[in-house]
Amino acid sequence: MTPAPTSIDWIAVDWGTSNLRVWAMDAGGILAEAQSDDGMGKLARDGFEAALLRLIAPWLGDRVTPVVACGMVGSRQGWHEAPYRAVPCTPLDRAALVAVPTTDARIRMMIAPGLKQANPADVMRGEETQIAGALALHPAFDGVLCLPGTHAKWAQISAGEVVSFQTFMTGEMFALLSTQSVLRHGMQGDGWDDAAFDAALSDALSRPEKIAARLFGLRAEGLIAGLTPQAAKSRLSGLLIGIELAAARPYWLGQAVSIIGTEALATSYARALAMQGVTARLLPATACTLAGLASLYQPMAAQ
Amino acid sequence: MTPAPTSIDWIAVDWGTSNLRVWAMDAGGILAEAQSDDGMGKLARDGFEAALLRLIAPWLGDRVTPVVACGMVGSRQGWHEAPYRAVPCTPLDRAALVAVPTTDARIRMMIAPGLKQANPADVMRGEETQIAGALALHPAFDGVLCLPGTHAKWAQISAGEVVSFQTFMTGEMFALLSTQSVLRHGMQGDGWDDAAFDAALSDALSRPEKIAARLFGLRAEGLIAGLTPQAAKSRLSGLLIGIELAAARPYWLGQAVSIIGTEALATSYARALAMQGVTARLLPATACTLAGLASLYQPMAAQ
Repeated sequence: MTPAPTSIDWIAVDWGTSNLRVWAMDAGGILAEAQSDDGMGKLARDGFEAALLRLIAPWLGDRVTPVVACGMVGSRQGWHEAPYRAVPCTPLDRAALVAVPTTDARIRMMIAPGLKQANPADVMRGEETQIAGALALHPAFDGVLCLPGTHAKWAQISAGEVVSFQTFMTGEMFALLSTQSVLRHGMQGDGWDDAAFDAALSDALSRPEKIAARLFGLRAEGLIAGLTPQAAKSRLSGLLIGIELAAARPYWLGQAVSIIGTEALATSYARALAMQGVTARLLPATACTLAGLASLYQPMAAQ
Repeated sequence: MTPAPTSIDWIAVDWGTSNLRVWAMDAGGILAEAQSDDGMGKLARDGFEAALLRLIAPWLGDRVTPVVACGMVGSRQGWHEAPYRAVPCTPLDRAALVAVPTTDARIRMMIAPGLKQANPADVMRGEETQIAGALALHPAFDGVLCLPGTHAKWAQISAGEVVSFQTFMTGEMFALLSTQSVLRHGMQGDGWDDAAFDAALSDALSRPEKIAARLFGLRAEGLIAGLTPQAAKSRLSGLLIGIELAAARPYWLGQAVSIIGTEALATSYARALAMQGVTARLLPATACTLAGLASLYQPMAAQ
């Protein structure tokens, strides 16, 4: 259903490497949503405005509508660079929003900057908005946030600021190994094997130095020991999350952890942490993204 | 130059996933060689004989020429399956050669089986022939062989037998991460940085549990700290060889190690081992392959 343009206050945009998601918002929440696969990765600089308008044009009326975006759209290869802010700092700062000139006068386009950390060198774009959203939803939160995904992030939060963070290529490694490497031959189909996940996770956490030896074993066991595709895929996931947890131990050991993510992946991380005696709270990713973007818009509206 | 068919005793074939290499042989050695990219990975079962004949037809005469092949051509997805032999065993056994029926009566086609290990599960196809060649060239060798590559192998050799072995996906991981992952953006061009390789190797060997945290750092340092493409690529290599060495420590610690490989990669492994106080001998890969295949042919010729 297309809402009447007069009822829309602003438009929220989550624009990553692979996907573009937009929401028509009013003070009460979501009026409509849309998405496309016009991610940053497939657009030239002059293609962004048209890709956005393809989704939001039906929502635009006579007056100017604010559009607030986060994600890779603000990278150097994106629509318009929004320079990183350096931690320790609040996850978002309205004063750092970057205004983007547009051809279409019906929108006022703004992009939120990502965060950078000097040592160890690290960057994020998009997750800072989810972190801000988590803090908007739970203002008293102090502790650790885990954001699983293509480039999983762990962030230490204290007094409303991101103190430090670290990125792990866990999701991208899983995708490459399960679909592009020799392991793909033994991973077809769906299905999941919790016991295989648990065993691989424990093995990787207790002997992370063996990871390079474990991966080809998935192929070999498929060839000569009847390892099923669902067990192989679950073990690959357990191994990769296991070495992530091994390297992220300072983040979660004895800490209050909340996981911002989509259900299946967040549940796997929660299961993995529970095996280490850590009870994690789950926060839905989209709700955090929208709360973060709203925290940038709402002060504007109040002015 | 095409040798006269009458002068050829036999044809040696190294047939992997990506490439097909053939050599026209007599008792004195190589008379001619040829190669194509008709690897196992791109051929249907009925395409193998034609792919082979495209290279060797000029060498064939009136009498039957023996052809001895090793590699993925003998896998279940290859031309004709040559079932794995189980370690501990000699790397090759003439009695286990598998005869392959051909349409062309001018060749007598044989494929060497690979090796398998039950626990930990592992397999090899092609490397067993290089190992046999190394032992043919150095009959007294006892110790450890390292075979870097797409799927790097470490093998414990004793009394002419492969006692155990282990495979690492180091080469395939390097290829995927440097050309398919987000890290590819910071790895264009050639060039090498020994100091970056050495530092990453030491880091990965001393703290292998941090590997999952180190990889994205290559991207982040490229974005915010000016890491050069050649340093990034050298560090990626150092990190991946480092975690391989960490997992393979029981193979090389205090052992006599020989490396079978091509020059650049074998030199990187030798450098990495030298940093751990291990002096490795280098054996050229092609010479080992040919000596291994010859060890299968020569007893036939002597009968």
